[in-house]
Amino acid sequence: MVCGFDILGMAIHEPYDEMELKLLETPEVIIRHRDDFGLPEEPSANVAGVVLLKMIEHLNLKKGFEVTIRKRIKPGSGLGSSAASAAGAAVGANELLGNIFKREELVYFAMFGEELASGVRHADNIAPCIYGGITLVKSSDPVDIIPLSTPDLFVTAVHPQIEVKTSDARQILKTTVLLKDAIAQWGNIAGLIAGIQKNDYGLIGRSLKDVIIEPVRSILIPKFDEIKKKSMELKALGGGISGSGPSVFMLSETEKVSRCIAEMMKDTYDGIGIESMVCISKINPSGITIMD
Amino acid sequence: MVCGFDILGMAIHEPYDEMELKLLETPEVIIRHRDDFGLPEEPSANVAGVVLLKMIEHLNLKKGFEVTIRKRIKPGSGLGSSAASAAGAAVGANELLGNIFKREELVYFAMFGEELASGVRHADNIAPCIYGGITLVKSSDPVDIIPLSTPDLFVTAVHPQIEVKTSDARQILKTTVLLKDAIAQWGNIAGLIAGIQKNDYGLIGRSLKDVIIEPVRSILIPKFDEIKKKSMELKALGGGISGSGPSVFMLSETEKVSRCIAEMMKDTYDGIGIESMVCISKINPSGITIMD
Repeated sequence: MVCGFDILGMAIHEPYDEMELKLLETPEVIIRHRDDFGLPEEPSANVAGVVLLKMIEHLNLKKGFEVTIRKRIKPGSGLGSSAASAAGAAVGANELLGNIFKREELVYFAMFGEELASGVRHADNIAPCIYGGITLVKSSDPVDIIPLSTPDLFVTAVHPQIEVKTSDARQILKTTVLLKDAIAQWGNIAGLIAGIQKNDYGLIGRSLKDVIIEPVRSILIPKFDEIKKKSMELKALGGGISGSGPSVFMLSETEKVSRCIAEMMKDTYDGIGIESMVCISKINPSGITIMD
Repeated sequence: MVCGFDILGMAIHEPYDEMELKLLETPEVIIRHRDDFGLPEEPSANVAGVVLLKMIEHLNLKKGFEVTIRKRIKPGSGLGSSAASAAGAAVGANELLGNIFKREELVYFAMFGEELASGVRHADNIAPCIYGGITLVKSSDPVDIIPLSTPDLFVTAVHPQIEVKTSDARQILKTTVLLKDAIAQWGNIAGLIAGIQKNDYGLIGRSLKDVIIEPVRSILIPKFDEIKKKSMELKALGGGISGSGPSVFMLSETEKVSRCIAEMMKDTYDGIGIESMVCISKINPSGITIMD
């Protein structure tokens, strides 16, 4: 999330996936997708599947899980699609098992899903699904998650319908950065955390700047600079690339501003013939919701 | 300050300098040092002097200042000696002028003193002198200072009597860093800010880690690793190099722990025949104090 690359994440209400989990009397995992994304249903090749297999193995469980998934968060959107499947599986299974795991343990299991999706066991998208709100991943091994305050802000996100693979988006990053840029970045992340905890929207806005990742990755996103510039003119607090892209998000203080930004985003991509999905949401303070 | 290199600073009660300022009827600056540090008294070569000259120039002032300085913070200690002179001059002059400047303007003027001392107009030591407590320098141009909460902690600092010039300590730093180290560092600074604002001492402790600057600069400080290791065994929360060194500081929750650390620090340097000055202080919530 902007200057919090790899450590900061935020839960939103929409789009969301629905998952239905049932306990089985045998230690196996059955995955069924009720969506059109063509994701593998073989448990060991499925993001939710590997999480559940790991849980069964860890507990030496004699039971298993049957899972039906209705995905709405498009894979490869940068909106945390794999995290939603992985964290959803972990939280759902924990509910069926009588809530035997703590939240950091659920993060631990869900990261196996992220590893399958991107090759990296990162928790920055998993943690907000499980804790809600905005979370800081202090460490993923051992898992050390810091839940932050939830500012009363609107999130506008646009997903231009081109795919950027997380693994590709990682590969174009340089392995070294200038010390002066790193210092600017840690000033920004420090300001952002202070702004979130002090509920200081101006400070949040001034701190939503990424001098290291965004200049490189934004090259993969058509119209990124234009969308950002116009969003700021429309009074966004700030924003940037969502996850590894190509989705872009902007924060704003009012629903009116968030709607104007949504419209501008849609128009911008329409203008160059790229289909896009736009959504508006408050920050979701509770993350994954258990439905009956 | 540890993972907040160049952006985070903290005010302490001791050691401190005393400055006496008087208004003169002519636009000149007179500096007198009542200490044994051999600092130049020529205003344009004196840290306090250049700040006052800049203020006179900025206001096109017809008056001037006579300043008597009793320094106790040793130059080159890493305890912010130059910042104390520069910020003290700015705050004192502002008081005599009827408090016409805002705090960020005082930071602006005081940075000219830091520039004279180290060649860099940095505000990380200036800001806590002027604002008190722990401050985040979001930007030094324009000046954007974020005052943070003041945790109820003890600071133990030791100054081994060897000189490390700020300019030398800057020169040994590499101009590039690994992205993975930069990410670890911004996780630590984010955790530290969250810990300070949430008053979570455990989190402060886990976050007081500097993977970029400390491994390089600590080479210049005799016994650094041993002092750090022993401090942690004595239940320090954490700590690191103060400023650009050679002083080292440790935070702890109780006065008893801070005293044990102070004793250990003194003994460690005595053991290798290096004289040292040790001090214990709470974090100073108000910074520079005006005395009558």
